[in-house]
Amino acid sequence: MSDHPQQPRREFLQTTLLTGVAGLAAAQFPSLVDAAERPASSPLIKPGSTILFQGDSITDAGRSRPDAGTPNQKPGMGNGYAWMTAAALLTSPGGDTLTIYNRGISGNKVFQLAERWQAECLDLKPDVLSILIGVNDIWHRLNGKYDGTVETYEKDYRELLRRTKAELPDVRLVICEPFVLRCGAVNDSWFPLFDQFREAAHKLAGEFKTVFVPFQSMFDEAVKYAPPEHWAGDGVHPTAHGAALMASHWIRCVHSAT
Amino acid sequence: MSDHPQQPRREFLQTTLLTGVAGLAAAQFPSLVDAAERPASSPLIKPGSTILFQGDSITDAGRSRPDAGTPNQKPGMGNGYAWMTAAALLTSPGGDTLTIYNRGISGNKVFQLAERWQAECLDLKPDVLSILIGVNDIWHRLNGKYDGTVETYEKDYRELLRRTKAELPDVRLVICEPFVLRCGAVNDSWFPLFDQFREAAHKLAGEFKTVFVPFQSMFDEAVKYAPPEHWAGDGVHPTAHGAALMASHWIRCVHSAT
Repeated sequence: MSDHPQQPRREFLQTTLLTGVAGLAAAQFPSLVDAAERPASSPLIKPGSTILFQGDSITDAGRSRPDAGTPNQKPGMGNGYAWMTAAALLTSPGGDTLTIYNRGISGNKVFQLAERWQAECLDLKPDVLSILIGVNDIWHRLNGKYDGTVETYEKDYRELLRRTKAELPDVRLVICEPFVLRCGAVNDSWFPLFDQFREAAHKLAGEFKTVFVPFQSMFDEAVKYAPPEHWAGDGVHPTAHGAALMASHWIRCVHSAT
Repeated sequence: MSDHPQQPRREFLQTTLLTGVAGLAAAQFPSLVDAAERPASSPLIKPGSTILFQGDSITDAGRSRPDAGTPNQKPGMGNGYAWMTAAALLTSPGGDTLTIYNRGISGNKVFQLAERWQAECLDLKPDVLSILIGVNDIWHRLNGKYDGTVETYEKDYRELLRRTKAELPDVRLVICEPFVLRCGAVNDSWFPLFDQFREAAHKLAGEFKTVFVPFQSMFDEAVKYAPPEHWAGDGVHPTAHGAALMASHWIRCVHSAT
């Protein structure tokens, strides 16, 4: 029935790991559409790259602080889009050459990233640095805990990016668009102010020629297919489905970058 | 502070939708790395394509039967990799031209797909047909509910693919590798028999020159970064994290196909 030699599982897996999935397929079926070949790497993510995710609770997503120094492993990566993105990259062909960290901290605004930037970004010498920040800069203002404005956000963010490029001139930057869903804690009082925050992030992406991941535009499309609560119950923190969609689009955007 | 004209949210969104995210970025920041341009379409998935996911409970994933006829919408798509894949495609540039259905049914083996193939596959005239089938063909044999063998699986599956190509000669086929995680209901009694089932699926992918999505190889990599239970609690049915990883690799493989 099968023209495959009977291989023990271990040996079969070894073959797969040694030749890579694409290699296995190509070797056994030269005519097979060689669909598995798109690797984890891209013009932006090179083999061996160190990737750092920075941000607030959306990035943090329950990661273990004691495990923060162990890259790639679930405990230190949390449960959110950073982990889901990492998992997809690490399991793609060549992905095991990557070193991926998460240093998001719940509640952070831009100035709080700046306070811990030396130890929690620059010292890690990332080749690719992805930042998602902004929702607390407006949320904490709306609830009276913070007096920063959109001008504060833009100025602080620009200074953080300048400092990063000065210290790590070859770093590839990924700026993620702050986003909210219209449900839970997010009501009309957030608008139009919130749009100014995401426009500021977009503007900085242009100034620093970074990749820009348009999460708000993505979620604006996503609510055509499932209600806002499916993507983020409180309007701010993504569900697993929201995080999965973010991971998919992060990879789409970063892999498209030249 | 911002050189963007103040736009009401609705107008901003309209601009985004009309020009597309990439268009917006390009218009405002000609120097911006134009990262959002990778569209939902590819050589395999063309604009306007109808995509059908077929399979067993892993594909079904709790989809609503009364809503099965409404494509693209969450209720009819379930909670699994089929929905997560659909969501990622639908929210990518141009994705709103796609029509995506899920017709997986829990417990199905290949012969049960065949019994409902006219109404639940051929009549839908998919341009892209993705099939994930096999785990029940072995599971139900192991627990004494079914007497089919791996030869039955391969023969029935080949006949199903022949019939599909005869009726829909231009259909682009995607064969997904059956997989298990080593936890929950999956113990040593599954091996090496299980490997023969996935080798049969791989062989058919070669015979019919389909895209092959190597889910087992993917999960074999994934367990290096998180324990098997993180991906599928019972070893068979993926968690949201397992399903998200499947969606990511389905898209990677299908978008790589030429």
